[in-house]
Amino acid sequence: MTKDVALIVGGGPGISASCARLFGESGMRVGVAARNPDKPVLRILEKTHGVRRYACDASEPASVALLFENAARDLGALTLVVHNIDGRVPGILGKAITEADPSMALDTIRNSALSAFLVGQQAARLMRENTPNAKGTRGTIIFTNASAALKGFPSSAAFAMACHAKTGLAQSMARELMPHGIHVANVPIDAAIGWTQEDGTRAHRRAGTTVDDNMADPDCIAETYLQLHRQHRSTWAFEIVLRPWIEKW
Amino acid sequence: MTKDVALIVGGGPGISASCARLFGESGMRVGVAARNPDKPVLRILEKTHGVRRYACDASEPASVALLFENAARDLGALTLVVHNIDGRVPGILGKAITEADPSMALDTIRNSALSAFLVGQQAARLMRENTPNAKGTRGTIIFTNASAALKGFPSSAAFAMACHAKTGLAQSMARELMPHGIHVANVPIDAAIGWTQEDGTRAHRRAGTTVDDNMADPDCIAETYLQLHRQHRSTWAFEIVLRPWIEKW
Amino acid sequence: MTKDVALIVGGGPGISASCARLFGESGMRVGVAARNPDKPVLRILEKTHGVRRYACDASEPASVALLFENAARDLGALTLVVHNIDGRVPGILGKAITEADPSMALDTIRNSALSAFLVGQQAARLMRENTPNAKGTRGTIIFTNASAALKGFPSSAAFAMACHAKTGLAQSMARELMPHGIHVANVPIDAAIGWTQEDGTRAHRRAGTTVDDNMADPDCIAETYLQLHRQHRSTWAFEIVLRPWIEKW
Amino acid sequence: MTKDVALIVGGGPGISASCARLFGESGMRVGVAARNPDKPVLRILEKTHGVRRYACDASEPASVALLFENAARDLGALTLVVHNIDGRVPGILGKAITEADPSMALDTIRNSALSAFLVGQQAARLMRENTPNAKGTRGTIIFTNASAALKGFPSSAAFAMACHAKTGLAQSMARELMPHGIHVANVPIDAAIGWTQEDGTRAHRRAGTTVDDNMADPDCIAETYLQLHRQHRSTWAFEIVLRPWIEKW
Repeated sequence: MTKDVALIVGGGPGISASCARLFGESGMRVGVAARNPDKPVLRILEKTHGVRRYACDASEPASVALLFENAARDLGALTLVVHNIDGRVPGILGKAITEADPSMALDTIRNSALSAFLVGQQAARLMRENTPNAKGTRGTIIFTNASAALKGFPSSAAFAMACHAKTGLAQSMARELMPHGIHVANVPIDAAIGWTQEDGTRAHRRAGTTVDDNMADPDCIAETYLQLHRQHRSTWAFEIVLRPWIEKW
Repeated sequence: MTKDVALIVGGGPGISASCARLFGESGMRVGVAARNPDKPVLRILEKTHGVRRYACDASEPASVALLFENAARDLGALTLVVHNIDGRVPGILGKAITEADPSMALDTIRNSALSAFLVGQQAARLMRENTPNAKGTRGTIIFTNASAALKGFPSSAAFAMACHAKTGLAQSMARELMPHGIHVANVPIDAAIGWTQEDGTRAHRRAGTTVDDNMADPDCIAETYLQLHRQHRSTWAFEIVLRPWIEKW
Repeated sequence: MTKDVALIVGGGPGISASCARLFGESGMRVGVAARNPDKPVLRILEKTHGVRRYACDASEPASVALLFENAARDLGALTLVVHNIDGRVPGILGKAITEADPSMALDTIRNSALSAFLVGQQAARLMRENTPNAKGTRGTIIFTNASAALKGFPSSAAFAMACHAKTGLAQSMARELMPHGIHVANVPIDAAIGWTQEDGTRAHRRAGTTVDDNMADPDCIAETYLQLHRQHRSTWAFEIVLRPWIEKW
Repeated sequence: MTKDVALIVGGGPGISASCARLFGESGMRVGVAARNPDKPVLRILEKTHGVRRYACDASEPASVALLFENAARDLGALTLVVHNIDGRVPGILGKAITEADPSMALDTIRNSALSAFLVGQQAARLMRENTPNAKGTRGTIIFTNASAALKGFPSSAAFAMACHAKTGLAQSMARELMPHGIHVANVPIDAAIGWTQEDGTRAHRRAGTTVDDNMADPDCIAETYLQLHRQHRSTWAFEIVLRPWIEKW
């Protein structure tokens, strides 16, 4: 049986690190791409889980194309790709529409939705060539998304645009690629996301205190991503919204 | 650690049997309730998986109350309840609104949505008393639902009403019970559902032919139910729509 | 040109009275049906606007069939039917699912959603026989709905079920009947609805005070209903959610 | 009473021309902005309805700012702004995700969603200064949208992104501006849109032939826009999907 190969685009101490650890522990070869692949969390993941690090500006077509070329050469045929870039330009939330900076809005859309388009496109190109696995899947493409994909909140028009655009992309790709055996999923996390410690090790948020109970645990998010990848093509989920038990919605 | 106890209301050879097998193989004590608990598939499940069989008319309040009383006494504190009743009165689909029989419409709503209300109510009563498990969950209540919950199709008003009502119920219960540690989930299956053989054993739909590829495999649905039950309360999914790779949507 | 004939099922001082006045002033012949057709507001509407009053228990098939027979005989071919029954059994809101009374839940569904089914069915039967008007419409069927159709709120499962069921019905009927020239619309009012004075005359809420600004004005709702009826079949709206400017959503 | 002033951004022979005519005939002062304000349809509208023509590249912040400055100076305080730009780069539909050109995708988003952001921003800035009219409205901002806002179709990822982004923008702006008395509406037209004749006069699609019945009539769309603008703030609609009677959905 061919080994699963995962590429995570966007590399921080939250969902990306949790995915890298879980996918690695599940027997996959794993690569992580980030603007700065030298961040401590990625160096630690390389040591502890053999994760391969890549530099990539995911909003640049050539950079994304090169990333996939390199990752496929280094790791083998990609079967799981996660786009995990939030893309918010700092200062964009809480800004009245009348005060919002158009260039920051466009940058947010480029960082988030356009990079998702580029990553999805390269993933689709490669996965179309894969042989279906035992579950009938040629590959899985997962887009991390946010509450703003479900509801456009006031004073954050640009982020609402970016997150909605990502949902539109995911829907279009799902309807197009699922009949070719490629599972596309959109996962809006309807909550703040918990953090892990500076050194990249897990913060034990589950130990029983309620301090972090209003935050989504990235380790749990990674579990859902793995389950999505392992679903049989007889019963694929396109969208899963995850939220903590005490979140209002 | 306390043993998980599952009660499945509605007992046929599809999702219910798949859940009973999977939950049993995962170490749970399992009960299944049906109008006729003597059907072959349930007798076989009793033999092969030690499943306890119960007679219940799920649209009758007293019958549902008695079921939960008996199941809790026999099996222990319930931690996973699945409502898996379609409830369609035969002949109700494909009927123009002008030709539809109001009493069949009301029966469909009673069989499907009212029974979901009764089952959800009894499950909530008992689960409120449970101690949270390691994932912070007092219990999980899952409603199987159908395409008609996502979209009211022509010439099937009564079924659209019943399925939409079930979604409304699930949403209300989720917003009410999740902060109490009870995970409520609505799972519309957007496809016809595959069958298992008369004797209750699995039909090997996954073997590679494409004959059944447009049908959802009940074994795969059961896996999603188990995953929902095992989610940490940090990241609960309320709704998961499952559909085959080649389904149009 | 044939005269428009409207039948409003459900007769109180809010939306029904506003519709009766507006439709009457727009040149339609108007009937209103209520359990008690002798309420002051209806007697006043009879005097001021020539509205015909009918007794009807809208949850009873025979009563609804008789209503439509009588209304068609008295008023002529029906071209606009409004179902404006909320149907909540008193005391059903704010009740935890564990404390909710199943028979009150079923009564709420019967009063609200089943009556909508019965009214929609009779309206469809008659309208199928109409000749299309200049806008290409054989008739318009409008269902007043509530916030609970958009979102199942906690501690009100039965009302969530009823309102969701009404949406499912409206969707199914719309997909079925629109190609036959019958316009079906679902109008969830996402707010409390303002009142009119005891004597049925308009309370002047629009005069400029902000006192009632968090309530939907039934006269404004009636305007939307009239606009829906007058839409050309080239561009029909199926659903319009109405909410006051300061409502949170 | 102050005169209504409408600015329509995007100027072709369909919705824009229908709006210009209807708004003008309803007593408003009307301006239309287009990349090329010299097209025949706009010259005719100038002659027949006194419509003021403006040149504007709606995807350029400075061009949009200048447009609003000029329009407010020429026409008076703007009370109704329509963003009616589709923005699709030619050749973008029907393109597999693997073949799609990223720069065309970004251009589509800039033309459509970013221009909506710029237009909405300038409209909000000016309308915030208006005095509420008799209906309590300081101004109305309407975004024309498309089927792709409701559903991401295969082989059209970029357009799905742009239309979804526009919905996200409209939602965010609505939640932010409605409590300030500015009515924001999103109007997805779920159909192809009928055309008017080359010379800008109405093509008589309503006369009774069924030839164009699967197309939305832009004159009817304009009526809905006018009704939205005239709604009392007690009952504002945020979103209205318009589709022909025989459209599948």
